[in-house]
Amino acid sequence: MTPPPTAPTPAPAAGPYAESLRLFARASRVIPGGIYGHTSPALTVPGEFPYFAARAEGGRYWDADGREFLDFMCGYGPIVLGHRHPEVEAAADKQRRDGDCFNHPTEAMVLLAERLVALTGFAGWAVFGKNGSDMTTWAVQVAREFTGRKKILRVRGGYHGAHAWCTPGHGGLIPEDRAHIHPFAWNDLDGLRALVGRHRGQVAAVIASPYHHPTFGDSSLPALGFWAGAEEICRRERALLIVDDVRAGFRLHLGGSHQFFGFTPDLVCFSKALGNGHAISATVGRAELKVAASRVFLTGSFWQGAVAMRAALTTLDVLERDDGIGRMRRLGERFAAGLRAGAERHRLQVSCSGPPAIPFMSFADDAGWRRQRRFCVEMARCGFFLHPHHNWFLCAAHTEADIDRALAAADGAFALVKADGG
Amino acid sequence: MTPPPTAPTPAPAAGPYAESLRLFARASRVIPGGIYGHTSPALTVPGEFPYFAARAEGGRYWDADGREFLDFMCGYGPIVLGHRHPEVEAAADKQRRDGDCFNHPTEAMVLLAERLVALTGFAGWAVFGKNGSDMTTWAVQVAREFTGRKKILRVRGGYHGAHAWCTPGHGGLIPEDRAHIHPFAWNDLDGLRALVGRHRGQVAAVIASPYHHPTFGDSSLPALGFWAGAEEICRRERALLIVDDVRAGFRLHLGGSHQFFGFTPDLVCFSKALGNGHAISATVGRAELKVAASRVFLTGSFWQGAVAMRAALTTLDVLERDDGIGRMRRLGERFAAGLRAGAERHRLQVSCSGPPAIPFMSFADDAGWRRQRRFCVEMARCGFFLHPHHNWFLCAAHTEADIDRALAAADGAFALVKADGG
Repeated sequence: MTPPPTAPTPAPAAGPYAESLRLFARASRVIPGGIYGHTSPALTVPGEFPYFAARAEGGRYWDADGREFLDFMCGYGPIVLGHRHPEVEAAADKQRRDGDCFNHPTEAMVLLAERLVALTGFAGWAVFGKNGSDMTTWAVQVAREFTGRKKILRVRGGYHGAHAWCTPGHGGLIPEDRAHIHPFAWNDLDGLRALVGRHRGQVAAVIASPYHHPTFGDSSLPALGFWAGAEEICRRERALLIVDDVRAGFRLHLGGSHQFFGFTPDLVCFSKALGNGHAISATVGRAELKVAASRVFLTGSFWQGAVAMRAALTTLDVLERDDGIGRMRRLGERFAAGLRAGAERHRLQVSCSGPPAIPFMSFADDAGWRRQRRFCVEMARCGFFLHPHHNWFLCAAHTEADIDRALAAADGAFALVKADGG
Repeated sequence: MTPPPTAPTPAPAAGPYAESLRLFARASRVIPGGIYGHTSPALTVPGEFPYFAARAEGGRYWDADGREFLDFMCGYGPIVLGHRHPEVEAAADKQRRDGDCFNHPTEAMVLLAERLVALTGFAGWAVFGKNGSDMTTWAVQVAREFTGRKKILRVRGGYHGAHAWCTPGHGGLIPEDRAHIHPFAWNDLDGLRALVGRHRGQVAAVIASPYHHPTFGDSSLPALGFWAGAEEICRRERALLIVDDVRAGFRLHLGGSHQFFGFTPDLVCFSKALGNGHAISATVGRAELKVAASRVFLTGSFWQGAVAMRAALTTLDVLERDDGIGRMRRLGERFAAGLRAGAERHRLQVSCSGPPAIPFMSFADDAGWRRQRRFCVEMARCGFFLHPHHNWFLCAAHTEADIDRALAAADGAFALVKADGG
């Protein structure tokens, strides 16, 4: 996330988002910014999208004003099977009846570690947290512990959470936070090679998401040979390769996006989709890193919570049994093909980027995201939430009919964009 | 937490903790250390306490072997009303039926911010996270943003989470992590004054828990005048005073432990007890800090989760309505008085420390915690979980009969300690 481009503007209390705006006014009195972080209205188009949610079911949700939306953001990723998935919630409820937060972990932690180790292929162990950043920051420390080195190489514009070493924000930072964090450009193997050369013998790890998904930008898949090359550079330099699969994990491959793209990392961080909305994160790592991992203190009051772990076990089971990942891919392909065809019909140039299950679309030559905003605002008006500046997410509860309805609405939105000067 | 003093030792598969040990053997294959963090068996007496929990209800829990324990750790704090409190769970369930993890916050976030602002007295705003350390680390950044300074003064041996600037661990750290973190001794106003003097004009904040609760040590309440003095030093230096109320919050005073001890901080971090086991944390701050707070990027995938917020609202309501805090204080006073009397009967010298609701007891001249371990192991054998090296927690579901049963068992445990050489 880059900082908000514009401040939220108050709107009349009578429009379609009157209740959202009423709540936002109250929130603004007692919360800095009213709504902060990735759901900040300032990151969309202020006043043109809902600010507050009320309820959700499957692939749709209702905002505070009672308006229904087809949910193409899925809670910014966590909802992978659909909101309130009956089997996931049944497993969570069963655990809840026994309790959640104990003085010890439960068998669920062992089962989930065994499951992730089996699924991810390369890993010998797993640990759990609550946030993606609990895991990315810890993985960086494990790499430093294992290698005895300091330097972390990361992709410029990549997102690995809001901790000081990687936050896209600017407030509250001191130079020491990033003294040994060095960026390279996504897909630029030569750049990575040169950076490693400049810090020969000092690089603890390279961290990247499995593909590049910047906010305020198109998604970018790995170039042919990028991951093989990155892997080789890391092996040769004895630096660890950390994959931040927090956003993409369990939407491209059940066992981690590294398997989808065909490479072997040393550490992978998961969160978001793992528990279908229940707060959980995980890191898996190579067996050789287990001792180093045990030396980096890792804890949190709620991290052994059994409910989220049971939810995660069931989410993985259902995704596997129903081929949820194949389903999201097919829905995403239908969506992207439809958007491309729709744009072409209206003689508009668009770029559909990202893997089908985590799609994004942008307009060519769209200075200030003007067309993009027009398009997404119109989609919201019609009941489809597509974020103008952040990749979208499909879930397995979406249907072909949902996609087709969205494409029908997109046809109208394209027409408006065209009429508005293309 | 200091690092584990001893490694967990495997025990025969037939003892009282056979199932715990069987699970631990499985866990050790796929999890670094088997069980990591604050619940590590290595931090108790390996083989003599349960390793895995199965279920809980009110003030008691059952381990993986089906043994029942009176729960004097309460999940290391979160369980303040008792496990599976019917009203908290009803509120959580009601929200769950509407959904939890949305593209936007819900009204619950506004209500909870309003509630915390009203309760805490000094605060103008609130924000929310999932972990205590989400909040302590962010509060430090807010102080740096507000003051434009770098230095953070903290109490030696205080616990503020597992992030690099404050973790009690050693692995994976680099010197830059603590370049501007400076310790002073708890209750040592002169030491604090001298430290501020050495870093005149550079101190962004002083951070401390409302009273000192080190692991492997007695708890220590603030000396007369400590907080007034610390507050005055901070005001004069224009440094912020951050209270880490993660562990003690909502057990001493409904509106934050600063009100119990009678002083006015700038920022207070809460977590643990706030949601009675549901994962949530919060920071409240002075109105003057609101703009600075809005400039320090703060987000997490699950942080606007409505279920934990509804649980927190109900936890606060029930604590207030039933005077849960008064109840825990009275139970704790009964417990401490009984422990003191029991020890005296057996001519043993003990120190009962901490506020009544968060008690701890240790033996005098107890090198290597030998007596303490003997005592707590015997208590566990009798079905009472008291951690040998970490403060204990009461909850409002405990009864006077529970305390009296624990005291009866303590009588036997004291006798054993005495027989074992005093």
